[in-house]
Amino acid sequence: MDPILVLMAPGFEEIELTAPVDILRRLGFSVVLVGVQNRRVEGAHGMIMEADMLLVDVDAEQYGGVIVPGGAGAWVLRRTAAVLKLVGHMYDAGKPVGAICAGPVVLQAAGILSNRRITCYPASDITSVFDSSTVVTDEATVTDGNIITGNGPGAAMKFGFALGEYLGADTGELRRAMLA
Amino acid sequence: MDPILVLMAPGFEEIELTAPVDILRRLGFSVVLVGVQNRRVEGAHGMIMEADMLLVDVDAEQYGGVIVPGGAGAWVLRRTAAVLKLVGHMYDAGKPVGAICAGPVVLQAAGILSNRRITCYPASDITSVFDSSTVVTDEATVTDGNIITGNGPGAAMKFGFALGEYLGADTGELRRAMLA
Repeated sequence: MDPILVLMAPGFEEIELTAPVDILRRLGFSVVLVGVQNRRVEGAHGMIMEADMLLVDVDAEQYGGVIVPGGAGAWVLRRTAAVLKLVGHMYDAGKPVGAICAGPVVLQAAGILSNRRITCYPASDITSVFDSSTVVTDEATVTDGNIITGNGPGAAMKFGFALGEYLGADTGELRRAMLA
Repeated sequence: MDPILVLMAPGFEEIELTAPVDILRRLGFSVVLVGVQNRRVEGAHGMIMEADMLLVDVDAEQYGGVIVPGGAGAWVLRRTAAVLKLVGHMYDAGKPVGAICAGPVVLQAAGILSNRRITCYPASDITSVFDSSTVVTDEATVTDGNIITGNGPGAAMKFGFALGEYLGADTGELRRAMLA
């Protein structure tokens, strides 16, 4: 399995980044943290994390999917053309595209949410970006084809498990080990 | 309220660190990440986070409590005399001492768990360190006096809310906002 990319922009929601990365790495998947602007990235609540590499150095062909955390960082990602291109490329290649909380606004801007069923954080600045063909549910996580979404920080671990299951892992043992 | 210290050693469990820090900062508390060895600290699953300051520069009198995340980092903290002194000082001063997963082994080594009720990760290398006067439950979180404990990654957000409630916050609105 090719490594999964996780996109980091200033203002990323820390729980929404660490929970899926933690879970996917525990399941044995390779996960690479990608800084879209810098390697040193400050999250929404002042926690500073280090990216493994920069977006400019990513060759999308070599990676197995992409994950978009929420927080204010999602809006930075949405304004970054190279991010939208990467997300569209992954989607078109049939690779998993995950997003949580505000993260789905990036998928919308990449043009991959027509006639898709998703979940996201239930705030009007987020839900108002989707066009009428996108079905926005209030579920904790939704998997529709190769798009996996989660609705907020409280669902960050569930989102990680949903990603792991999409990738073919049996998550039962890990759920028990993490007391989730 | 004086800032709350969160201790970071190599191998800290990333969810168990980010969830309580995120929640306490959202509740308006000041939280300081303290590296016990270095400012740049690698977690149990390869995520690198930056501490706000180093333990050698901490004057315990100026802080309002201490939190010990789990992961292999907890065992590093347990072997660090300055950590045990800090934890004992906070406890004796009546300030909150929090620990999650393997974190309570640090509180045990600091000598503050006699006749206390706690929870921790249910693995024998952890549960075997407590003496018979410590009541180890299987609850997600336990608050006994000024000791607040959580049992594992799946309880990391609950542990954050328990800490916030101990500190006097009403966490209902935040729980709803985080979809927790």
